[in-house]
Amino acid sequence: MSGVKHQKWWGWGVEGIGFNPEGKPNFAPFVKKAIGLDISKPGTPPKFEDLDVPAPVIDDALRTRLLDVVGERYLLDDDLDRVVHTLGKGVRDLMRIRRGDLRRVVDVVVYPADEAQVQKIVDLCVDADAVLIPFGGGSNIVGALEPMPAERRTVVSVDLGRMSKVLEIDDESGLARIQAGALGPQIEEQLGRRGWTMGHFPDSFNHSSLGGWIATRSTGMQSDKYGDIADIVRGLRAVRHGEVLALRPLPSTSSGPSVREMVIGSEGRLGIITEAWVNVHRVPEVREIVGYFFPDFTSGLDAMQEIHTSDAHTIVTRISDANETEMSFATQRAQKGRKKLVMNTLFGYLKRRGWDLEKMCLSYIGFEGGRRYVKQNQAIVKEIVTKHGGIVVGTGVGSVYDSKKFDTPYIRDFLLDRGATADVSETTTPWSNLKHLYDTTIEAANHAFDTAGTKGFIMCHFAHSYHSGACLYFTFALPDNDKATSYQNYDTVKRAIQQNFMDNGATVSHHHGVGSEHAPWMAEDISPAGTKLQRALLEGADPGNNFNPGKILHDGEPGIAMHSYDAPAPGGVSGRAEQVPSA
Amino acid sequence: MSGVKHQKWWGWGVEGIGFNPEGKPNFAPFVKKAIGLDISKPGTPPKFEDLDVPAPVIDDALRTRLLDVVGERYLLDDDLDRVVHTLGKGVRDLMRIRRGDLRRVVDVVVYPADEAQVQKIVDLCVDADAVLIPFGGGSNIVGALEPMPAERRTVVSVDLGRMSKVLEIDDESGLARIQAGALGPQIEEQLGRRGWTMGHFPDSFNHSSLGGWIATRSTGMQSDKYGDIADIVRGLRAVRHGEVLALRPLPSTSSGPSVREMVIGSEGRLGIITEAWVNVHRVPEVREIVGYFFPDFTSGLDAMQEIHTSDAHTIVTRISDANETEMSFATQRAQKGRKKLVMNTLFGYLKRRGWDLEKMCLSYIGFEGGRRYVKQNQAIVKEIVTKHGGIVVGTGVGSVYDSKKFDTPYIRDFLLDRGATADVSETTTPWSNLKHLYDTTIEAANHAFDTAGTKGFIMCHFAHSYHSGACLYFTFALPDNDKATSYQNYDTVKRAIQQNFMDNGATVSHHHGVGSEHAPWMAEDISPAGTKLQRALLEGADPGNNFNPGKILHDGEPGIAMHSYDAPAPGGVSGRAEQVPSA
Repeated sequence: MSGVKHQKWWGWGVEGIGFNPEGKPNFAPFVKKAIGLDISKPGTPPKFEDLDVPAPVIDDALRTRLLDVVGERYLLDDDLDRVVHTLGKGVRDLMRIRRGDLRRVVDVVVYPADEAQVQKIVDLCVDADAVLIPFGGGSNIVGALEPMPAERRTVVSVDLGRMSKVLEIDDESGLARIQAGALGPQIEEQLGRRGWTMGHFPDSFNHSSLGGWIATRSTGMQSDKYGDIADIVRGLRAVRHGEVLALRPLPSTSSGPSVREMVIGSEGRLGIITEAWVNVHRVPEVREIVGYFFPDFTSGLDAMQEIHTSDAHTIVTRISDANETEMSFATQRAQKGRKKLVMNTLFGYLKRRGWDLEKMCLSYIGFEGGRRYVKQNQAIVKEIVTKHGGIVVGTGVGSVYDSKKFDTPYIRDFLLDRGATADVSETTTPWSNLKHLYDTTIEAANHAFDTAGTKGFIMCHFAHSYHSGACLYFTFALPDNDKATSYQNYDTVKRAIQQNFMDNGATVSHHHGVGSEHAPWMAEDISPAGTKLQRALLEGADPGNNFNPGKILHDGEPGIAMHSYDAPAPGGVSGRAEQVPSA
Repeated sequence: MSGVKHQKWWGWGVEGIGFNPEGKPNFAPFVKKAIGLDISKPGTPPKFEDLDVPAPVIDDALRTRLLDVVGERYLLDDDLDRVVHTLGKGVRDLMRIRRGDLRRVVDVVVYPADEAQVQKIVDLCVDADAVLIPFGGGSNIVGALEPMPAERRTVVSVDLGRMSKVLEIDDESGLARIQAGALGPQIEEQLGRRGWTMGHFPDSFNHSSLGGWIATRSTGMQSDKYGDIADIVRGLRAVRHGEVLALRPLPSTSSGPSVREMVIGSEGRLGIITEAWVNVHRVPEVREIVGYFFPDFTSGLDAMQEIHTSDAHTIVTRISDANETEMSFATQRAQKGRKKLVMNTLFGYLKRRGWDLEKMCLSYIGFEGGRRYVKQNQAIVKEIVTKHGGIVVGTGVGSVYDSKKFDTPYIRDFLLDRGATADVSETTTPWSNLKHLYDTTIEAANHAFDTAGTKGFIMCHFAHSYHSGACLYFTFALPDNDKATSYQNYDTVKRAIQQNFMDNGATVSHHHGVGSEHAPWMAEDISPAGTKLQRALLEGADPGNNFNPGKILHDGEPGIAMHSYDAPAPGGVSGRAEQVPSA
C-alpha cells in the first residue's frame, strides 16, 4: 500500500527468493554429517493466520494527527505491517515467529515523505508520550527494532522507506548526501549511474539502509579499503524533539567529544537520522577478487596479518576455517567438464604435496585501483601467501564468492524450516589474541553443545583487517527437533560464545550492534564506568525515554531483556572488564 | 622539586632555547615589510617578580589529605608552579602574562606516581567539592588549562609528568600501552629503542603529552599515514569519581555510541586519562621528505588533491601559500657556496620559464615504506606535480623542513617580546570548498586588519589530507605597539577568521580543540542540538561539575568565556549551522 517493499514477515529477503539445494549434491550429506539433520523433507514456513496479533494501542487523537501529517496511504496499522515492523531477522525473531510468540507489537507504522514530516511525527509522538522506533530495511539481528515487552505507551514505527534518494554528489570532494531510508542497492544504483560507489557492502546489503548502518555502527565486507561506517559518514542530520541535529560534512574536527560518533551506534535512541554525507569513491578501473588455498587456518591467519602489515593494499582479506571451507564446497553447484577436471587435478596436486584436505582453508583477497597498482599489490600478496604455504587459485573461485556473498541468510531460513537453528556471533580482537580467541570460542561452543546434549557445528571466517587486529565471524548450527528444549539449547550455545568473547579480550560485536540482544554484556565490554557515560548521554538527551527505549542499555529491570527470553540472565558484571590483555 | 621539567612560565619551550635571527639576513627585512616592525631592538621577556599572584584557596584538611597521597615532594603550591600550571601557551596566555593579568590561578599542583594515586586524588577532591584540571605538557593554546575566572572552589592541577612510561608493547599487534603523562620525545625514545614509532608528531610534539593529545583530539603532521589521535588510540583508562573507565584495546567495535570517542576530545571533563593503548608501527626502512615548488597556490592545491585520490601513498602532503613560502625563505640561514649557486640557478630557470617568484609556493611531501614502495609512490607524485606545473626540488629542502618542524612557536615568542602579536587558526573543509575558504579567510583577515587600523600579515599552509577534504592552517601577525588597543586589535582579527570558518563550511578547529577559546562557536559548529548532546554527556557524567568545568561548553553566563577577555562576545548562534554546502 505504501509502495515500500519489505522482506518476508517470516524470513530473509523478499518472497520467492530462497536457498535451493537442487544441483548441490554435497549439501544434504554435509548437513547430515554436521548436525544429523535430514533435509530431504520439505520445509514448513509458518502461516500468518496462525499468529495471534494483539490489537493496536493508540488513541484517536494521535492517530488523526499522524494521518494529517503523512496521509492515509502512508499510515498503516494492519496486522501484517505491524508484525513486519516489530521483529528483525535475528534467529530469535524467526524462531519466535514460528512459535507464534509475539509480545509487544508496534501499534502503527508511518512512512514520512521527508525530514519535515519526520519532525512533525517526532514532535507529535513525544508530546503525546509515545515511543518512536525508526525502521530501515528491517534486517537487524540484535533485537533493536522490537518494543520492550512491558511498554504500555503507544509505539510508532517510523519507516524511512520513502526517503531513499541520493540528494547530491559533491564530485570534487568525493562526498554524497543520501537519505537515511535508502537501501544498499538503491544507493549503489544511483551513485553508479554517475560513476561513484560508497563501497559499503555488509552481508545485509540488499535489505539494509544507510540510516540503519549508521545507527548500528555497521561495517561492510570491503572495509580494508573503505573503512567502517564510522569512517565513511562525515556529516548527518537527525530529527530530535523540536530540533534537527545538523552536522556538516567535515573531513576531521577537534570540536569536543564527537557528536557524529555519538549518533553512530545510537540505535534510534538520540533521534531519527534523516540523511548523511558519506565518502564516495570513483568506481575503480580494475576490481578483482582472487581465491587462495592454505594448508590450515593458522598459516592463513599468519598470512593475513603479514599482508596487512606489508606495503600491499587490499579491499578485503578473508579466510574461512576448515569447517567453513567444507561448507563453501557443500553449497556449490556440482562441477562439470573442464572445471571439475581442473579442481580434481588441483586437489590431487595438493595431496601429493602433503596437504590434509580436511584442514584446507579457502581465502579471498580483493584488489581495486589502476591496473598497474592492482598487479603490484597482487604480486606482494602472492609472495606472502607462498611464504606461508598457500597457493593462488585465481579469480574464478573469487568471482563465485563475489556473486554469492549476500546469500548466507537464505540457508539459515532453509534450515530453520527443516528443524535446525543457525546463528552468528562476530567480534574483533588484537592480532596477538586471534588464535587464542578462535580456539577458546570453538572450545566454548563445543562444550555448550555437550552441555545441551546436542550435536552441533561451528565454523568461522576471518575478515576486516585493521592495523591492530581483525574480526572473527563465527556461524553455528544445531538441530531444533524438540520444541521444548531447542530454544534453551540455542541460548546456551549463543551465551557461551558471547561470554567467551568477554572473557578473552574481544568485543561483544564488531558490526551487528547491541540492541537488546547484546545489552547484558555491555558493562563487561566497555566497563561499568563506560555504560554510565552512555547512560548519561542517552538519558540526558531523551528525558522522556521516547526514542527506542531499552536498547543498548536496559533499565535494569530483570527479565526485560529480549536476551533473557526463557533462560536466566548472564551472571552479572565480572571484574574482568578491568583487565587488558598483556603483550 | 618534583623532578618534572616544565616549559618557560612566559613562553614556549624550556629556558635557554629560543629563536635566533643571527645568520638569517632576510628575516629582519621580511618582518619590517610584513608588519612594519623593527626587530633590531633587544626583546624584553617579562619578570616573574612583576606578577601579583593571588594566595591559594585550599583548606588544611584537603591539603593534608593530598599530601598523604603524593608526599611532600609531589605537592607544590609555590607561586611559580601555580602560574606554570594555570596558563597554556596560546598567544592570549602569553599576552596576559606580559601584562601581569592573572585571574584565577590554580591553588595547588599534585604529581601522582600512578593510577592508584590519581584515583585517591580524584576521590578526595570530588568529595571535598574541589575542581580537578589535568596537566600534561602545558602546551594548550585554546584556554583549556585555566580555571574559570569566577571559580570559588579549590582548584587542583593534576600534573601527570611522573607517569611517562611505555608500559608494554604488543609486538604482534602493533599496540603499545603508554602512560598519559609521557611527552612526545619520551614516547618516541622508548618506542624507538624497540624499533617502533607511534608516528604522531603534532607541532607541539616536544612539549605535549599522550593524555593531552587524546583530551584535545590532536592530529600529527604525518596524519596522512598514521591518522588522527582518534584513529591511533584503541583503548584507554580514565579515572572518574570512585571508578576507572577501562576500555580494552580493540581494532573496532559496534557496542553503541563509542565511549572511546567520548573521552577523545573531552578536555578533562569526563575524568583523568591515565594511560592508553595506541597503534604503533615498525620504524620504516625508508623515510624521505621531498621538496617541490609550484608556480602558485591554486596549482599546488590541485596537485595535493590529485595525489590524494591517486594510487600514491604519502605520510604528509603539505604546501605553503606564497606568503608562507616567503616567510620560510626569510627564516633560513644565508646560503653559501654550492647551495647558493644551485638555488640561484634554479630561480633563474624558473623565471625564464615564466614563473612569478612572488607567487611561488613551497611544498613538502613525505614517503615511508620499503625502498621500492617509496620509489613507486614518488614516481606517481612526480607525474602529478609535473602535470600541475610544479617541479621536484629534492630531499635537501625536505630535510630542512623536517629538522625545523617544531620551531615555529619560538618565532612567535621572539616577536611577542619585540612588539608583535602572532597567532594561528586552523580548520578543515571539503576539497570543493578549500579555495573558497582560503580566499574568504585571507579577505576576512585583511578586512579585520583595516578595521583595526593596523598593518597585518597572514599566511597559510595546506596539510592533513583526508578522503573528502583537508586542513588549512593560517598564521597571522600584527604589530602590538600600543598596549591600549593591541589586545582588541588582535581579538578583532582572530574573531574574524574563526567566524569566517563558521560562515563558510569549515570547522572551529581541526586539531587544537575547544577549551574556552573556541567554545563560543560550538553551537554554530555542531548546531545547537549538537551542543545539547555534548552537554547531556558532560553534565550527566559529572553532576558536581568538578572536572575542568567551563571548557568546551560554557555555562551560559555572559563574560565567563576567556574568549571575551575584553571584547564583546560574538553575536550568538546564527542559523547558518543548519546549512550544508552544496555540491
